[in-house]
Amino acid sequence: MNDHSPDPLQELYAGWVARTTARPDMPLEDVRALFEHWGDVTAEPRGIDYVEDAIGGLPALWVLPKGADDTRVLLCFHGGGYVLGSMYSHRKLYGHFARAAGCRALIVDYRRAPENLHPGPVNDCAAAYHGLLETGIAPSRVAFVGDSAGGALAITTLLRARELGLPLPGRVLAMAPYLDLEATGETYDTNAAVDALGAREATVAFVDVFLGPGGNRHDPLASPLYADLSGLPPILIQTGGDDVLLDDSRRFHALARAAGVDATLEVSPGQQHVFHFLAGVSPVADAAIARAGEWLKR
Amino acid sequence: MNDHSPDPLQELYAGWVARTTARPDMPLEDVRALFEHWGDVTAEPRGIDYVEDAIGGLPALWVLPKGADDTRVLLCFHGGGYVLGSMYSHRKLYGHFARAAGCRALIVDYRRAPENLHPGPVNDCAAAYHGLLETGIAPSRVAFVGDSAGGALAITTLLRARELGLPLPGRVLAMAPYLDLEATGETYDTNAAVDALGAREATVAFVDVFLGPGGNRHDPLASPLYADLSGLPPILIQTGGDDVLLDDSRRFHALARAAGVDATLEVSPGQQHVFHFLAGVSPVADAAIARAGEWLKR
Repeated sequence: MNDHSPDPLQELYAGWVARTTARPDMPLEDVRALFEHWGDVTAEPRGIDYVEDAIGGLPALWVLPKGADDTRVLLCFHGGGYVLGSMYSHRKLYGHFARAAGCRALIVDYRRAPENLHPGPVNDCAAAYHGLLETGIAPSRVAFVGDSAGGALAITTLLRARELGLPLPGRVLAMAPYLDLEATGETYDTNAAVDALGAREATVAFVDVFLGPGGNRHDPLASPLYADLSGLPPILIQTGGDDVLLDDSRRFHALARAAGVDATLEVSPGQQHVFHFLAGVSPVADAAIARAGEWLKR
Repeated sequence: MNDHSPDPLQELYAGWVARTTARPDMPLEDVRALFEHWGDVTAEPRGIDYVEDAIGGLPALWVLPKGADDTRVLLCFHGGGYVLGSMYSHRKLYGHFARAAGCRALIVDYRRAPENLHPGPVNDCAAAYHGLLETGIAPSRVAFVGDSAGGALAITTLLRARELGLPLPGRVLAMAPYLDLEATGETYDTNAAVDALGAREATVAFVDVFLGPGGNRHDPLASPLYADLSGLPPILIQTGGDDVLLDDSRRFHALARAAGVDATLEVSPGQQHVFHFLAGVSPVADAAIARAGEWLKR
């Protein structure tokens, strides 16, 4: 918005927290309906066509900027704690990335928890990647892109693809990835007052839904903080300085560098969780997406 | 929403009125940015592709439900007082109508006032219709569909097409059409307390922007209340009982019937201006769209 209102993403998150706190027994269906509005804050990225398709047996949404290079694809994994969000809630967000990168994007509608417990989502994303490769696209021309839990999936799908013997994609962009399933990061405390959405209790609650009873919080396919990261392609991590998940990114970045990965971490001060949703509205979001687009083009 | 919140359309409208009232000098660009969020309240109509195109020299958005009958088209004119709104703000709304009617829709991005004063918008819409006919589609397989100012355009474009000697479309659906440019309707008073958006002063202000200085409020191409309505195709008018514009629909309906037109008026009690935006969220909106879809299929 240009009308001097408060950060619309902060407002959106505060509204979600107020509604879910006021109604702790809100049915999952209603929480999902709330989070379908994630993209409401995003400006419409114009000049883009959208085509629903199936890839690897899963629903998926093609995001087709007019005049885009069709030899490259951003394979996009949406956020929402593995439980919420969809190819619709993230349509505009990934539209902005596709345009910035000058290529097509494909948003995977992986099956979510609790209907599809871990490793269901990562297996779905790997199946979508396999399906994409079967269309004849070169792996080096594919980038994995994800936000929040989808940022984790952008990394864990690499690991799963490697297990399956698939060639790895050329690049990975993870926005505000959700990696530490034990929520031990200091930024859960230091950013508690400024993060309008995230909180340690919420993270812990999501982990139970996602892993199911007795799930292993150190499973590398659920938390790549415990994975062998050697040999992974270049990874760009972009995150907001006010995000309680900031330490997840810092830890992963350090581990990836230690494993010899070409990993870059960009922290945008004062920004909320997946501030990129403010594309077309906030110059900070637009600048981050422009940088990511240039990086993805390389 | 299913979470027992108040009518989200009422909330949206109240928010717009609060913001624009708090800032009477809000630049037009910012008011337009606000109204781009009209469709935020609408549930995503799934299973639809969207393709940007040009028709009659104007930008337009194809709305393509999977498996739709491609011999029929809803030519859609969006609302927003001829000044606001776009083919993007109304994407989901007309997606629901296209699916209900089982055919494609084409949303015309006509050039808005004040950049394009009356009769600019109606001429643009007639040009889009002409362009659509040139693609080879049968006029009888086209329906004009519009909401608010777009509901007026759905009628005035008929009149303009007749002037141009074009064959008329098969049917017209006008939602909450904005027809009386003098805002004389009694429902401006009787619904003043319940309509969250409309008000006599706002209507009068829009008319000045749309017609330009000294514009004729009785020009039939601006207000079809002053037109010769004889020979027009069947018209369905759907409007909310709480809309200050309700009397516009009643007056037009009576005039159309008197002129021998097969005109039907459906008033949904307790509903706001273009309550159809609550498609997928409100059973009343879904029922109205389902009835309209069946009527459009005939």
